[in-house]
Amino acid sequence: QEPAERRTAVPGVATGLAVTGAGGDVLYVEASLADPETGAAGLTLTGQLGDVMKESAQIALSFLRSHGAELELPVGDLKDRGVHIHFPAGAVPKDGPSAGITMTTALASLLSGRLVRTDVAMTGEVSLTGRVLPIGGVKQKLLAAHRAGVTTVIIPKRNEPDLDDVPAEVLEKLDVHAVTDVRQVLELALSPATNGAAPEVPVAA
Amino acid sequence: QEPAERRTAVPGVATGLAVTGAGGDVLYVEASLADPETGAAGLTLTGQLGDVMKESAQIALSFLRSHGAELELPVGDLKDRGVHIHFPAGAVPKDGPSAGITMTTALASLLSGRLVRTDVAMTGEVSLTGRVLPIGGVKQKLLAAHRAGVTTVIIPKRNEPDLDDVPAEVLEKLDVHAVTDVRQVLELALSPATNGAAPEVPVAA
Amino acid sequence: QEPAERRTAVPGVATGLAVTGAGGDVLYVEASLADPETGAAGLTLTGQLGDVMKESAQIALSFLRSHGAELELPVGDLKDRGVHIHFPAGAVPKDGPSAGITMTTALASLLSGRLVRTDVAMTGEVSLTGRVLPIGGVKQKLLAAHRAGVTTVIIPKRNEPDLDDVPAEVLEKLDVHAVTDVRQVLELALSPATNGAAPEVPVAA
Amino acid sequence: QEPAERRTAVPGVATGLAVTGAGGDVLYVEASLADPETGAAGLTLTGQLGDVMKESAQIALSFLRSHGAELELPVGDLKDRGVHIHFPAGAVPKDGPSAGITMTTALASLLSGRLVRTDVAMTGEVSLTGRVLPIGGVKQKLLAAHRAGVTTVIIPKRNEPDLDDVPAEVLEKLDVHAVTDVRQVLELALSPATNGAAPEVPVAA
Amino acid sequence: QEPAERRTAVPGVATGLAVTGAGGDVLYVEASLADPETGAAGLTLTGQLGDVMKESAQIALSFLRSHGAELELPVGDLKDRGVHIHFPAGAVPKDGPSAGITMTTALASLLSGRLVRTDVAMTGEVSLTGRVLPIGGVKQKLLAAHRAGVTTVIIPKRNEPDLDDVPAEVLEKLDVHAVTDVRQVLELALSPATNGAAPEVPVAA
Amino acid sequence: QEPAERRTAVPGVATGLAVTGAGGDVLYVEASLADPETGAAGLTLTGQLGDVMKESAQIALSFLRSHGAELELPVGDLKDRGVHIHFPAGAVPKDGPSAGITMTTALASLLSGRLVRTDVAMTGEVSLTGRVLPIGGVKQKLLAAHRAGVTTVIIPKRNEPDLDDVPAEVLEKLDVHAVTDVRQVLELALSPATNGAAPEVPVAA
Ligand SMILES: [Ca+2]
Ligand SMILES: [Ca+2]
Ligand SMILES: [Ca+2]
Ligand SMILES: [Ca+2]
Ligand SMILES: [Ca+2]
Ligand SMILES: [Ca+2]
Ligand SMILES: [Ca+2]
Ligand SMILES: [Ca+2]
Ligand SMILES: [Ca+2]
Ligand SMILES: [Ca+2]
Ligand SMILES: [Ca+2]
Ligand SMILES: [Ca+2]
Repeated sequence: QEPAERRTAVPGVATGLAVTGAGGDVLYVEASLADPETGAAGLTLTGQLGDVMKESAQIALSFLRSHGAELELPVGDLKDRGVHIHFPAGAVPKDGPSAGITMTTALASLLSGRLVRTDVAMTGEVSLTGRVLPIGGVKQKLLAAHRAGVTTVIIPKRNEPDLDDVPAEVLEKLDVHAVTDVRQVLELALSPATNGAAPEVPVAA
Repeated sequence: QEPAERRTAVPGVATGLAVTGAGGDVLYVEASLADPETGAAGLTLTGQLGDVMKESAQIALSFLRSHGAELELPVGDLKDRGVHIHFPAGAVPKDGPSAGITMTTALASLLSGRLVRTDVAMTGEVSLTGRVLPIGGVKQKLLAAHRAGVTTVIIPKRNEPDLDDVPAEVLEKLDVHAVTDVRQVLELALSPATNGAAPEVPVAA
Repeated sequence: QEPAERRTAVPGVATGLAVTGAGGDVLYVEASLADPETGAAGLTLTGQLGDVMKESAQIALSFLRSHGAELELPVGDLKDRGVHIHFPAGAVPKDGPSAGITMTTALASLLSGRLVRTDVAMTGEVSLTGRVLPIGGVKQKLLAAHRAGVTTVIIPKRNEPDLDDVPAEVLEKLDVHAVTDVRQVLELALSPATNGAAPEVPVAA
Repeated sequence: QEPAERRTAVPGVATGLAVTGAGGDVLYVEASLADPETGAAGLTLTGQLGDVMKESAQIALSFLRSHGAELELPVGDLKDRGVHIHFPAGAVPKDGPSAGITMTTALASLLSGRLVRTDVAMTGEVSLTGRVLPIGGVKQKLLAAHRAGVTTVIIPKRNEPDLDDVPAEVLEKLDVHAVTDVRQVLELALSPATNGAAPEVPVAA
Repeated sequence: QEPAERRTAVPGVATGLAVTGAGGDVLYVEASLADPETGAAGLTLTGQLGDVMKESAQIALSFLRSHGAELELPVGDLKDRGVHIHFPAGAVPKDGPSAGITMTTALASLLSGRLVRTDVAMTGEVSLTGRVLPIGGVKQKLLAAHRAGVTTVIIPKRNEPDLDDVPAEVLEKLDVHAVTDVRQVLELALSPATNGAAPEVPVAA
Repeated sequence: QEPAERRTAVPGVATGLAVTGAGGDVLYVEASLADPETGAAGLTLTGQLGDVMKESAQIALSFLRSHGAELELPVGDLKDRGVHIHFPAGAVPKDGPSAGITMTTALASLLSGRLVRTDVAMTGEVSLTGRVLPIGGVKQKLLAAHRAGVTTVIIPKRNEPDLDDVPAEVLEKLDVHAVTDVRQVLELALSPATNGAAPEVPVAA
């Protein structure tokens, strides 16, 4: 498993948290916008996503289509540029609504050119108005975040009671933010805008 | 469960009433219109909706497409702007025609910029001409509305006999309106237009 | 059950007759045309319609697309305006070809602005050239029409022998027209054009 | 059953022959072209057609799209006008390739405005180049044609041996044409062009 | 069965070879291009084709879309003209990749107006770059070609060892060409261009 | 099996490695771009690909749509030119994400006109940002590459530990490159650009 720094070194990538058969795990979301010259359009979703997760992607995109301008995002880029959201690894089926805020963050990062902070992971359903709704598996997700070297975790406000189940020694290493609105997520997770072009060239290995 | 005030604090959100395995419950409908700059078009429905509920959304939209101008709604906004209707929570399957008037109200709120009154919840099938048709579960729905702090409930006229089954102590706390036409629902549920821009910034939590 | 007058008080609504598990019943067809400003297009069908009934709607629409101009209907309205045909109640499955003439009538009413006569109900398959083909359940349908206060019933010519099965006391209260062509149906069922705009505002309940 | 004269009294209707559970039967094909003002486009197929029959309709249409101009048909009418092919009765499932020449004839009648001869019925698969391929059920089909008052029957050349099975007293009443190319079918089945507009007004019953 | 001369007497028809339940058989491929006046577009496939065969048709078309200009074919004709590929007989299911070179030949014949030689039959999978890949059933296919009066057969180079299984008395009557590239097939199978228009009028029977 | 030189002698073809029921095998990817004159558009995938492999193709294409310009590829060619990716043999089902880098390479070869080196085979999942993710079957794949005469193999960095399972006598004949980013794959696998037109005419056999 590569360190999270490597993965979120380009705009459009955010770190989520998932529950798997073997406990929790970090889950990366990758988003891309096609070069307008290529004529690509519409929304492409890959990563063997289930119905609920596909709908969650549509909600994240619609939130930005209706509220992106308020957030000073260049939403005109969504016109005539194909949006693609991918969850590696490609052969592993994934489902559920809890990557909603992670997808919203990846898309906002892509549009703004601001990197997602490498020390932040998140989990939460997002609604069409930007509310953050509760999800399951808080304990396993926080343990996974901790194992992956994440230091800041964003969870839904209504999941705060679940923090009682997280071992104290893990909780004291994590800076947990409980939020009600996805705009708070973007404030916490996006790095400040850099001057000049976004660093799109990956670090060579 | 957040208070209803929080949920309907932006245009496009209306409070419905549903019957679930565990009695009745309030059910929020969220509607959004994409920024025309984003090039989004068509109708997107999310929230794991069944066939009957998807058709109900099409009926609500067609009612406004053919009758919205009479109601002084800016229906031109429906052209070349993607309409999205979402029912949180995203992973819970939902079906049936009884959210018809709630969807119509959410869309009319969105187009007009008028908020839906936070003390109002509603249930009723809507027909293509705007008639309000009877639904099931009046008793459970009114009990749920009462528990959620709602004070005004809108039901179909033809469901009035079902009010006999609602405990008197609940009924006396509720202002129940029995209606035959969705235009009556809009009159009852939409707050007066405010001067200036609609308050689209959510209350921070 | 509302009186039929209420239901057909706007152009685009016609009264059909159906056979259900519990005998016959009246069945309303509602048709709407979207405001051209809304950019809606195509044909939308709702009411949990089966395959045969969906095809029947396409036949009714094609009949008017090819023969509407002869009938002095403003068929240009069908271009770039979405047509929606709905059969309440939305959750009840419906199928079969026998609402063909009822859908044709509802669409012709909508295009012409002429109301469908409130005392008329009808049943009959329509072909692409406008012929009226025989259907089943004449007895149950006429009994239902009578119960619902209808006084004029339109049936296919080839179903005339089935009138022998209808009780004489019902038949004498009904004015039954047996027809071979849907143009005869339109002559019988559409009210004369009114001067000025069609009355699109519903009667308040 | 109406006499065939009634059915083919408008351009676009041709008489086919089918095998059913109860022997053979005549089968009408109705074709229509939408008024260009209505904005309809594409091919609509109705009558509960199976896969093979739907493909057969596409072959008939493609034959005219590529060879219609040679036949002096106004193929430009196929652009931006919706073509609809319907097989009454609407609720009866139908399948198989043997209505290929009947559909080709109905479409050529529609485009040319020439009526299909009321005394002619036909059966035969059509290929993309216009060849007429053999079909089944010749005996039952000819018996049905005779019963329906048809006097001229068109069959594929390669089905000539099947005529041995048809009772002599039926065969002597029928003028049977065995053909290899659909262009021969059109020569035999289409009435001469009339002067002036085609008679699109149906005979009142 | 008509002689092959009849079938390939128009551009766009090529003779393939198939394995059926009853040994081998010749298999005709018919291709047509719609008159641009008809507004037809896209690719239509008929003949009850299975998934593999449908993909094979797409490969044949893409080969010509990318390499047709090198072969001096008027590929601009593919724009805004509907391409239709049909395999008679229409009701017989067919599948497999071995008609790839036959479809490519039929399309090249259609575009060039050059007839396919009536004495040639062929079998072979085609790849997107035009390579000819091995297929099954060489023995049965050659026997069928011989029975049908074909004198020249084209097979994939990598199937040459299968010729050992073909009876010597059949093989000596056939001129077998083993090829690696579909361009070789076109050289062998297409008749020289004729002067003037292609003979599109079929021979009357 | 033809030597790999033959297969990759045109731009757009790359050599992959697959695990089959019978060990490993080389797997060719063929990509083509339609002549703009043909009006083809969109992405066509053939070769009986499973869901995961189809998504993998979309990821490869989206990577080039968003990052191709940085790589100095003429991505404008993707607009209004149909892209087709095919995996011979056409009748063999294939699935999995491990041809991701092979498809990316084939497409980059096609766009640049640079041939893929004939001595190179590769395996690796690609993510939307170009990261190379681990795959299975390294041992069988390297044995197959060796058998096919390949001398250079590209594998994901995270699969390096699997090299321990490959027999030493095979490993010493192979030049194995373990990579983290698809840009490294392109550097290794693409031949230098030639002056003048790419050699699109295949070697005659
Ligand atoms: Ca599901
Ligand atoms: Ca902490
Ligand atoms: Ca359903
Ligand atoms: Ca009260
Ligand atoms: Ca059905
Ligand atoms: Ca009477
Ligand atoms: Ca079938
Ligand atoms: Ca005779
Ligand atoms: Ca298959
Ligand atoms: Ca020989
Ligand atoms: Ca799958
Ligand atoms: Ca080595």
